[in-house]
Amino acid sequence: MNTAPVSRRARPAKAPLSRDVIIETGLRILDEDGLAALTMRRVAQELDTGAASLYVYVANRDDLMAAMLDHVLGTLAEPTGGTWRERLVALVDAAVAAMSRHEGLALVALGSIPTAPNTLLLMDRMLALFAESGVDEMTNSWAVDLLFLHVTAAAAEQSAYNTKGMRAEEHLAEVAKRFAELPADRYPMIVGMRESLMTGDGDARGKWALRVLIEGILATPVT
Amino acid sequence: MNTAPVSRRARPAKAPLSRDVIIETGLRILDEDGLAALTMRRVAQELDTGAASLYVYVANRDDLMAAMLDHVLGTLAEPTGGTWRERLVALVDAAVAAMSRHEGLALVALGSIPTAPNTLLLMDRMLALFAESGVDEMTNSWAVDLLFLHVTAAAAEQSAYNTKGMRAEEHLAEVAKRFAELPADRYPMIVGMRESLMTGDGDARGKWALRVLIEGILATPVT
Repeated sequence: MNTAPVSRRARPAKAPLSRDVIIETGLRILDEDGLAALTMRRVAQELDTGAASLYVYVANRDDLMAAMLDHVLGTLAEPTGGTWRERLVALVDAAVAAMSRHEGLALVALGSIPTAPNTLLLMDRMLALFAESGVDEMTNSWAVDLLFLHVTAAAAEQSAYNTKGMRAEEHLAEVAKRFAELPADRYPMIVGMRESLMTGDGDARGKWALRVLIEGILATPVT
Repeated sequence: MNTAPVSRRARPAKAPLSRDVIIETGLRILDEDGLAALTMRRVAQELDTGAASLYVYVANRDDLMAAMLDHVLGTLAEPTGGTWRERLVALVDAAVAAMSRHEGLALVALGSIPTAPNTLLLMDRMLALFAESGVDEMTNSWAVDLLFLHVTAAAAEQSAYNTKGMRAEEHLAEVAKRFAELPADRYPMIVGMRESLMTGDGDARGKWALRVLIEGILATPVT
Protein backbone atom coordinates (compact mmCIF):
# COMPACT_ATOMS: atom_id res chain seq x y z
CA MET A 1 0.00 0.00 0.00
CA ASN A 2 1.18 3.50 -0.76
CA THR A 3 1.49 5.78 2.22
CA ALA A 4 2.45 8.95 0.34
CA PRO A 5 -0.59 10.88 -0.85
CA VAL A 6 -1.31 10.27 -4.51
CA SER A 7 -3.79 12.15 -6.62
CA ARG A 8 -6.93 10.14 -7.11
CA ARG A 9 -6.63 10.50 -10.89
CA ALA A 10 -3.09 9.16 -10.98
CA ARG A 11 -4.03 5.94 -9.15
CA PRO A 12 -5.12 2.83 -11.02
CA ALA A 13 -8.84 2.16 -10.95
CA LYS A 14 -9.88 0.51 -7.69
CA ALA A 15 -11.20 -3.04 -7.82
CA PRO A 16 -14.94 -2.92 -7.16
CA LEU A 17 -15.85 -3.72 -3.55
CA SER A 18 -17.68 -6.96 -2.90
CA ARG A 19 -18.18 -9.31 0.02
CA ASP A 20 -15.68 -11.73 -1.56
CA VAL A 21 -13.00 -9.08 -2.00
CA ILE A 22 -13.45 -8.01 1.63
CA ILE A 23 -13.24 -11.61 2.85
CA GLU A 24 -10.08 -12.31 0.84
CA THR A 25 -8.48 -9.10 2.10
CA GLY A 26 -9.37 -10.04 5.68
CA LEU A 27 -7.74 -13.47 5.24
CA ARG A 28 -4.59 -11.91 3.80
CA ILE A 29 -4.28 -9.49 6.74
CA LEU A 30 -4.91 -12.31 9.24
CA ASP A 31 -2.31 -14.58 7.65
CA GLU A 32 0.32 -11.87 7.23
CA ASP A 33 -0.06 -9.88 10.43
CA GLY A 34 -2.16 -11.92 12.84
CA LEU A 35 -5.50 -11.62 14.58
CA ALA A 36 -4.78 -8.34 16.37
CA ALA A 37 -4.13 -6.61 13.03
CA LEU A 38 -7.49 -7.64 11.63
CA THR A 39 -9.69 -4.59 12.10
CA MET A 40 -12.38 -3.12 9.86
CA ARG A 41 -10.21 -0.01 9.58
CA ARG A 42 -7.24 -2.01 8.33
CA VAL A 43 -9.37 -3.90 5.78
CA ALA A 44 -10.72 -0.54 4.55
CA GLN A 45 -7.17 0.85 4.28
CA GLU A 46 -6.01 -2.14 2.24
CA LEU A 47 -8.94 -1.67 -0.08
CA ASP A 48 -8.31 2.05 -0.31
CA THR A 49 -11.75 2.92 0.97
CA GLY A 50 -13.45 4.06 4.15
CA ALA A 51 -14.64 1.65 6.85
CA ALA A 52 -18.20 2.87 6.30
CA SER A 53 -18.15 1.45 2.75
CA LEU A 54 -17.42 -2.03 4.14
CA TYR A 55 -20.56 -2.09 6.26
CA VAL A 56 -22.66 -2.44 3.14
CA TYR A 57 -21.14 -5.93 2.75
CA VAL A 58 -20.29 -7.10 6.28
CA ALA A 59 -22.07 -6.14 9.50
CA ASN A 60 -18.98 -5.95 11.73
CA ARG A 61 -15.71 -7.68 12.51
CA ASP A 62 -17.46 -10.76 13.96
CA ASP A 63 -19.52 -11.07 10.80
CA LEU A 64 -16.36 -10.73 8.72
CA MET A 65 -14.60 -13.45 10.74
CA ALA A 66 -17.61 -15.76 10.33
CA ALA A 67 -17.59 -15.10 6.57
CA MET A 68 -13.85 -15.78 6.43
CA LEU A 69 -14.36 -19.11 8.21
CA ASP A 70 -17.13 -20.07 5.83
CA HIS A 71 -14.97 -19.08 2.85
CA VAL A 72 -12.15 -21.32 4.10
CA LEU A 73 -14.54 -24.24 4.58
CA GLY A 74 -15.70 -23.73 1.00
CA THR A 75 -12.26 -24.77 -0.27
CA LEU A 76 -12.42 -28.37 1.00
CA ALA A 77 -12.14 -31.02 -1.68
CA GLU A 78 -14.84 -33.70 -1.75
CA PRO A 79 -13.15 -36.96 -0.69
CA THR A 80 -13.71 -39.75 -3.22
CA GLY A 81 -13.03 -43.48 -3.14
CA GLY A 82 -12.71 -45.75 -0.14
CA THR A 83 -15.23 -46.63 2.54
CA TRP A 84 -17.53 -44.08 4.19
CA ARG A 85 -15.18 -44.15 7.17
CA GLU A 86 -12.11 -43.35 5.06
CA ARG A 87 -13.94 -40.52 3.34
CA LEU A 88 -15.22 -39.15 6.67
CA VAL A 89 -11.71 -39.22 8.15
CA ALA A 90 -10.33 -37.46 5.04
CA LEU A 91 -13.05 -34.82 5.24
CA VAL A 92 -12.48 -34.17 8.96
CA ASP A 93 -8.71 -34.01 8.45
CA ALA A 94 -9.14 -31.51 5.63
CA ALA A 95 -11.49 -29.38 7.74
CA VAL A 96 -9.09 -29.32 10.70
CA ALA A 97 -6.17 -28.43 8.41
CA ALA A 98 -8.09 -25.63 6.67
CA MET A 99 -9.40 -24.11 9.91
CA SER A 100 -6.10 -24.31 11.77
CA ARG A 101 -4.22 -22.56 8.95
CA HIS A 102 -5.64 -19.17 9.97
CA GLU A 103 -5.17 -17.77 13.48
CA GLY A 104 -8.29 -17.60 15.60
CA LEU A 105 -10.66 -18.68 12.85
CA ALA A 106 -11.60 -22.00 14.45
CA LEU A 107 -12.80 -20.20 17.56
CA VAL A 108 -15.48 -18.44 15.50
CA ALA A 109 -17.25 -21.78 15.12
CA LEU A 110 -17.41 -22.40 18.88
CA GLY A 111 -20.70 -21.56 20.47
CA SER A 112 -22.96 -21.21 17.49
CA ILE A 113 -24.90 -23.74 15.46
CA PRO A 114 -23.57 -23.56 11.89
CA THR A 115 -25.81 -21.58 9.53
CA ALA A 116 -23.34 -20.31 6.87
CA PRO A 117 -23.57 -21.94 3.40
CA ASN A 118 -20.23 -23.81 3.18
CA THR A 119 -20.27 -24.84 6.82
CA LEU A 120 -23.73 -26.32 6.27
CA LEU A 121 -22.40 -28.08 3.16
CA LEU A 122 -19.64 -29.65 5.26
CA MET A 123 -22.26 -30.72 7.80
CA ASP A 124 -24.44 -32.17 5.03
CA ARG A 125 -21.51 -34.24 3.72
CA MET A 126 -20.66 -35.52 7.18
CA LEU A 127 -24.29 -36.52 7.74
CA ALA A 128 -24.32 -38.33 4.36
CA LEU A 129 -21.11 -40.23 5.15
CA PHE A 130 -22.26 -41.26 8.61
CA ALA A 131 -25.63 -42.35 7.22
CA GLU A 132 -23.75 -44.92 5.10
CA SER A 133 -22.74 -46.66 8.35
CA GLY A 134 -26.42 -47.48 8.92
CA VAL A 135 -26.59 -45.38 12.10
CA ASP A 136 -30.06 -44.02 13.01
CA GLU A 137 -30.99 -40.40 12.21
CA MET A 138 -30.91 -39.05 15.75
CA THR A 139 -27.53 -40.61 16.53
CA ASN A 140 -26.22 -39.27 13.22
CA SER A 141 -27.48 -35.78 14.12
CA TRP A 142 -25.81 -35.77 17.52
CA ALA A 143 -22.70 -37.42 16.08
CA VAL A 144 -22.08 -34.71 13.50
CA ASP A 145 -22.61 -32.05 16.18
CA LEU A 146 -19.96 -33.76 18.33
CA LEU A 147 -17.59 -34.26 15.39
CA PHE A 148 -17.95 -30.62 14.47
CA LEU A 149 -17.08 -29.55 18.03
CA HIS A 150 -14.06 -31.83 17.88
CA VAL A 151 -12.93 -30.42 14.51
CA THR A 152 -13.20 -26.92 15.93
CA ALA A 153 -11.28 -27.76 19.10
CA ALA A 154 -8.57 -29.68 17.28
CA ALA A 155 -8.13 -26.83 14.80
CA ALA A 156 -8.07 -24.20 17.56
CA GLU A 157 -5.45 -26.19 19.44
CA GLN A 158 -3.32 -26.63 16.32
CA SER A 159 -3.70 -22.97 15.45
CA ALA A 160 -2.66 -21.91 18.97
CA TYR A 161 0.52 -23.98 18.67
CA ASN A 162 1.26 -22.48 15.26
CA THR A 163 0.65 -18.94 16.48
CA LYS A 164 2.88 -19.25 19.50
CA GLY A 165 5.53 -20.31 17.02
CA MET A 166 6.50 -22.98 19.50
CA ARG A 167 8.69 -25.70 18.22
CA ALA A 168 6.93 -28.89 19.19
CA GLU A 169 10.15 -30.50 20.41
CA GLU A 170 11.06 -27.56 22.65
CA HIS A 171 7.61 -27.45 24.18
CA LEU A 172 7.63 -31.20 24.82
CA ALA A 173 11.09 -31.05 26.38
CA GLU A 174 9.86 -28.35 28.77
CA VAL A 175 6.78 -30.36 29.71
CA ALA A 176 8.84 -33.52 30.24
CA LYS A 177 11.13 -31.59 32.56
CA ARG A 178 8.16 -30.20 34.49
CA PHE A 179 6.59 -33.67 34.86
CA ALA A 180 9.87 -35.13 36.10
CA GLU A 181 10.10 -32.49 38.82
CA LEU A 182 6.58 -32.95 40.20
CA PRO A 183 6.19 -34.33 43.75
CA ALA A 184 5.18 -38.00 43.42
CA ASP A 185 2.99 -37.93 46.54
CA ARG A 186 0.75 -35.22 45.06
CA TYR A 187 0.84 -36.31 41.41
CA PRO A 188 1.36 -40.08 41.60
CA MET A 189 -0.21 -40.90 38.23
CA ILE A 190 1.59 -38.23 36.21
CA VAL A 191 4.96 -39.02 37.76
CA GLY A 192 4.47 -42.76 37.30
CA MET A 193 3.16 -42.44 33.74
CA ARG A 194 5.37 -39.58 32.56
CA GLU A 195 6.94 -41.61 29.75
CA SER A 196 3.60 -42.77 28.36
CA LEU A 197 2.26 -39.23 28.65
CA MET A 198 4.92 -38.00 26.24
CA THR A 199 4.33 -40.62 23.53
CA GLY A 200 2.79 -39.88 20.14
CA ASP A 201 2.90 -36.67 18.14
CA GLY A 202 -0.09 -34.44 17.41
CA ASP A 203 -0.78 -36.23 14.15
CA ALA A 204 -0.85 -39.73 15.67
CA ARG A 205 -3.00 -38.55 18.57
CA GLY A 206 -5.35 -36.73 16.20
CA LYS A 207 -5.88 -39.82 14.05
CA TRP A 208 -6.49 -41.92 17.16
CA ALA A 209 -8.95 -39.36 18.56
CA LEU A 210 -11.02 -39.56 15.39
CA ARG A 211 -11.06 -43.36 15.55
CA VAL A 212 -12.20 -43.11 19.18
CA LEU A 213 -15.05 -40.77 18.24
CA ILE A 214 -16.25 -42.90 15.32
CA GLU A 215 -16.05 -46.17 17.31
CA GLY A 216 -17.72 -44.53 20.29
CA ILE A 217 -20.54 -43.13 18.20
CA LEU A 218 -21.21 -46.45 16.47
CA ALA A 219 -21.28 -48.17 19.87
CA THR A 220 -23.56 -45.58 21.52
CA PRO A 221 -26.89 -45.06 19.75
CA VAL A 222 -28.80 -42.13 21.24
CA THR A 223 -32.05 -44.04 21.56
CA MET B 1 -13.64 2.00 44.62
CA ASN B 2 -13.23 5.67 45.41
CA THR B 3 -12.62 7.89 42.43
CA ALA B 4 -12.22 11.18 44.33
CA PRO B 5 -8.67 11.72 45.53
CA VAL B 6 -8.26 10.81 49.19
CA SER B 7 -5.20 11.43 51.28
CA ARG B 8 -3.20 8.26 51.68
CA ARG B 9 -3.40 8.57 55.47
CA ALA B 10 -7.18 8.86 55.52
CA ARG B 11 -7.67 5.65 53.52
CA PRO B 12 -8.04 2.29 55.20
CA ALA B 13 -4.91 0.18 55.08
CA LYS B 14 -4.62 -1.59 51.72
CA ALA B 15 -4.78 -5.36 51.68
CA PRO B 16 -1.29 -6.67 50.97
CA LEU B 17 -0.76 -7.64 47.33
CA SER B 18 -0.34 -11.29 46.55
CA ARG B 19 -0.76 -13.55 43.54
CA ASP B 20 -4.03 -14.88 45.05
CA VAL B 21 -5.47 -11.40 45.61
CA ILE B 22 -4.61 -10.47 42.02
CA ILE B 23 -6.20 -13.67 40.67
CA GLU B 24 -9.39 -13.15 42.69
CA THR B 25 -9.62 -9.54 41.55
CA GLY B 26 -9.14 -10.64 37.94
CA LEU B 27 -11.97 -13.16 38.27
CA ARG B 28 -14.26 -10.55 39.78
CA ILE B 29 -13.61 -8.10 36.93
CA LEU B 30 -14.10 -10.86 34.34
CA ASP B 31 -17.40 -12.00 35.86
CA GLU B 32 -18.77 -8.50 36.39
CA ASP B 33 -17.61 -6.69 33.26
CA GLY B 34 -16.46 -9.31 30.77
CA LEU B 35 -13.26 -10.28 29.03
CA ALA B 36 -12.63 -6.90 27.35
CA ALA B 37 -12.60 -5.18 30.76
CA LEU B 38 -9.90 -7.49 32.09
CA THR B 39 -6.67 -5.51 31.70
CA MET B 40 -3.66 -5.28 33.97
CA ARG B 41 -4.45 -1.59 34.37
CA ARG B 42 -7.97 -2.31 35.58
CA VAL B 43 -6.74 -4.96 38.04
CA ALA B 44 -4.21 -2.46 39.38
CA GLN B 45 -6.93 0.22 39.72
CA GLU B 46 -9.18 -2.15 41.66
CA LEU B 47 -6.31 -2.94 43.99
CA ASP B 48 -5.45 0.73 44.35
CA THR B 49 -1.93 0.23 43.08
CA GLY B 50 0.11 0.72 39.91
CA ALA B 51 0.28 -1.86 37.14
CA ALA B 52 4.04 -2.13 37.71
CA SER B 53 3.41 -3.55 41.20
CA LEU B 54 1.39 -6.42 39.68
CA TYR B 55 4.28 -7.62 37.54
CA VAL B 56 6.04 -8.88 40.64
CA TYR B 57 3.30 -11.50 40.92
CA VAL B 58 2.07 -12.13 37.35
CA ALA B 59 4.11 -11.81 34.17
CA ASN B 60 1.35 -10.37 31.95
CA ARG B 61 -2.33 -10.68 31.13
CA ASP B 62 -1.90 -14.15 29.57
CA ASP B 63 -0.15 -15.35 32.71
CA LEU B 64 -2.95 -13.86 34.82
CA MET B 65 -5.61 -15.63 32.71
CA ALA B 66 -3.73 -18.93 33.04
CA ALA B 67 -3.51 -18.44 36.80
CA MET B 68 -7.24 -17.62 36.95
CA LEU B 69 -8.04 -20.83 35.06
CA ASP B 70 -5.87 -22.86 37.40
CA HIS B 71 -7.50 -21.20 40.42
CA VAL B 72 -10.96 -22.14 39.12
CA LEU B 73 -9.88 -25.74 38.53
CA GLY B 74 -8.64 -25.83 42.12
CA THR B 75 -12.22 -25.50 43.37
CA LEU B 76 -13.46 -28.83 41.98
CA ALA B 77 -14.77 -31.27 44.58
CA GLU B 78 -13.33 -34.77 44.53
CA PRO B 79 -16.14 -37.10 43.39
CA THR B 80 -16.71 -39.95 45.80
CA GLY B 81 -18.77 -43.13 45.61
CA GLY B 82 -19.93 -44.99 42.56
CA THR B 83 -17.93 -46.69 39.84
CA TRP B 84 -14.80 -45.20 38.24
CA ARG B 85 -16.98 -44.24 35.29
CA GLU B 86 -19.53 -42.39 37.44
CA ARG B 87 -16.76 -40.55 39.24
CA LEU B 88 -15.03 -39.68 35.95
CA VAL B 89 -18.27 -38.32 34.49
CA ALA B 90 -18.88 -36.28 37.67
CA LEU B 91 -15.35 -34.88 37.54
CA VAL B 92 -15.60 -33.96 33.84
CA ASP B 93 -19.03 -32.35 34.38
CA ALA B 94 -17.67 -30.31 37.29
CA ALA B 95 -14.67 -29.18 35.22
CA VAL B 96 -16.85 -28.10 32.28
CA ALA B 97 -19.20 -26.23 34.62
CA ALA B 98 -16.36 -24.45 36.44
CA MET B 99 -14.53 -23.45 33.25
CA SER B 100 -17.64 -22.30 31.41
CA ARG B 101 -18.72 -20.05 34.29
CA HIS B 102 -16.09 -17.44 33.36
CA GLU B 103 -15.94 -15.85 29.91
CA GLY B 104 -12.98 -16.84 27.78
CA LEU B 105 -11.23 -18.85 30.48
CA ALA B 106 -11.66 -22.23 28.75
CA LEU B 107 -9.83 -20.92 25.70
CA VAL B 108 -6.71 -20.40 27.80
CA ALA B 109 -6.36 -24.18 28.06
CA LEU B 110 -6.44 -24.69 24.28
CA GLY B 111 -3.06 -25.15 22.68
CA SER B 112 -0.86 -25.79 25.66
CA ILE B 113 -0.08 -28.96 27.59
CA PRO B 114 -1.25 -28.38 31.19
CA THR B 115 1.55 -27.48 33.58
CA ALA B 116 -0.24 -25.46 36.29
CA PRO B 117 -0.69 -27.16 39.71
CA ASN B 118 -4.47 -27.58 39.89
CA THR B 119 -4.81 -28.44 36.21
CA LEU B 120 -2.21 -31.16 36.70
CA LEU B 121 -4.13 -32.37 39.74
CA LEU B 122 -7.28 -32.68 37.63
CA MET B 123 -5.26 -34.59 35.03
CA ASP B 124 -3.84 -36.86 37.74
CA ARG B 125 -7.33 -37.67 39.00
CA MET B 126 -8.59 -38.41 35.51
CA LEU B 127 -5.64 -40.73 34.90
CA ALA B 128 -6.33 -42.52 38.21
CA LEU B 129 -10.01 -42.99 37.40
CA PHE B 130 -9.33 -44.27 33.88
CA ALA B 131 -6.66 -46.62 35.23
CA GLU B 132 -9.40 -48.34 37.25
CA SER B 133 -10.98 -49.45 33.97
CA GLY B 134 -7.91 -51.60 33.35
CA VAL B 135 -6.92 -49.65 30.25
CA ASP B 136 -3.19 -49.71 29.35
CA GLU B 137 -0.94 -46.76 30.25
CA MET B 138 -0.47 -45.38 26.77
CA THR B 139 -4.17 -45.48 25.96
CA ASN B 140 -4.88 -43.83 29.32
CA SER B 141 -2.36 -41.08 28.52
CA TRP B 142 -3.87 -40.31 25.14
CA ALA B 143 -7.39 -40.68 26.54
CA VAL B 144 -6.93 -38.02 29.22
CA ASP B 145 -5.40 -35.68 26.62
CA LEU B 146 -8.49 -36.17 24.43
CA LEU B 147 -10.89 -35.81 27.38
CA PHE B 148 -9.15 -32.61 28.41
CA LEU B 149 -9.52 -31.19 24.89
CA HIS B 150 -13.20 -32.12 24.99
CA VAL B 151 -13.70 -30.50 28.41
CA THR B 152 -12.10 -27.32 27.11
CA ALA B 153 -14.15 -27.27 23.91
CA ALA B 154 -17.43 -28.04 25.69
CA ALA B 155 -16.73 -25.32 28.27
CA ALA B 156 -15.74 -22.78 25.59
CA GLU B 157 -18.92 -23.55 23.67
CA GLN B 158 -21.07 -23.24 26.79
CA SER B 159 -19.33 -20.03 27.78
CA ALA B 160 -19.83 -18.53 24.31
CA TYR B 161 -23.58 -19.22 24.56
CA ASN B 162 -23.68 -17.67 28.02
CA THR B 163 -21.75 -14.60 26.91
CA LYS B 164 -23.89 -13.91 23.89
CA GLY B 165 -26.78 -13.94 26.33
CA MET B 166 -28.68 -15.92 23.77
CA ARG B 167 -31.78 -17.61 24.97
CA ALA B 168 -31.41 -21.21 23.87
CA GLU B 169 -35.00 -21.39 22.62
CA GLU B 170 -34.69 -18.27 20.49
CA HIS B 171 -31.45 -19.46 18.94
CA LEU B 172 -32.91 -22.89 18.21
CA ALA B 173 -36.02 -21.37 16.66
CA GLU B 174 -33.84 -19.28 14.33
CA VAL B 175 -31.78 -22.30 13.33
CA ALA B 176 -34.89 -24.41 12.71
CA LYS B 177 -36.24 -21.67 10.45
CA ARG B 178 -32.94 -21.47 8.56
CA PHE B 179 -32.84 -25.27 8.07
CA ALA B 180 -36.43 -25.31 6.81
CA GLU B 181 -35.60 -22.71 4.16
CA LEU B 182 -32.51 -24.46 2.74
CA PRO B 183 -32.67 -25.77 -0.83
CA ALA B 184 -33.15 -29.55 -0.64
CA ASP B 185 -31.08 -30.25 -3.75
CA ARG B 186 -27.99 -28.65 -2.21
CA TYR B 187 -28.52 -29.74 1.41
CA PRO B 188 -30.45 -33.01 1.10
CA MET B 189 -29.34 -34.48 4.43
CA ILE B 190 -29.98 -31.38 6.55
CA VAL B 191 -33.38 -30.75 4.98
CA GLY B 192 -34.38 -34.41 5.34
CA MET B 193 -33.08 -34.73 8.89
CA ARG B 194 -34.01 -31.28 10.18
CA GLU B 195 -36.26 -32.61 12.93
CA SER B 196 -33.63 -35.03 14.26
CA LEU B 197 -31.04 -32.27 14.08
CA MET B 198 -33.02 -30.17 16.54
CA THR B 199 -33.51 -32.92 19.17
CA GLY B 200 -31.82 -32.94 22.56
CA ASP B 201 -30.70 -30.01 24.68
CA GLY B 202 -27.08 -29.15 25.46
CA ASP B 203 -27.16 -31.17 28.66
CA ALA B 204 -28.45 -34.37 27.02
CA ARG B 205 -25.99 -34.02 24.16
CA GLY B 206 -23.13 -33.33 26.58
CA LYS B 207 -23.87 -36.45 28.61
CA TRP B 208 -24.08 -38.52 25.43
CA ALA B 209 -20.81 -37.08 24.10
CA LEU B 210 -19.00 -38.15 27.25
CA ARG B 211 -20.43 -41.66 26.96
CA VAL B 212 -19.26 -41.77 23.33
CA LEU B 213 -15.75 -40.74 24.33
CA ILE B 214 -15.48 -43.26 27.17
CA GLU B 215 -16.91 -46.13 25.08
CA GLY B 216 -14.71 -45.18 22.13
CA ILE B 217 -11.57 -45.04 24.26
CA LEU B 218 -12.25 -48.41 25.87
CA ALA B 219 -12.85 -49.92 22.41
CA THR B 220 -9.73 -48.36 20.84
CA PRO B 221 -6.48 -49.23 22.60
CA VAL B 222 -3.58 -47.22 21.21
CA THR B 223 -1.33 -50.23 20.80
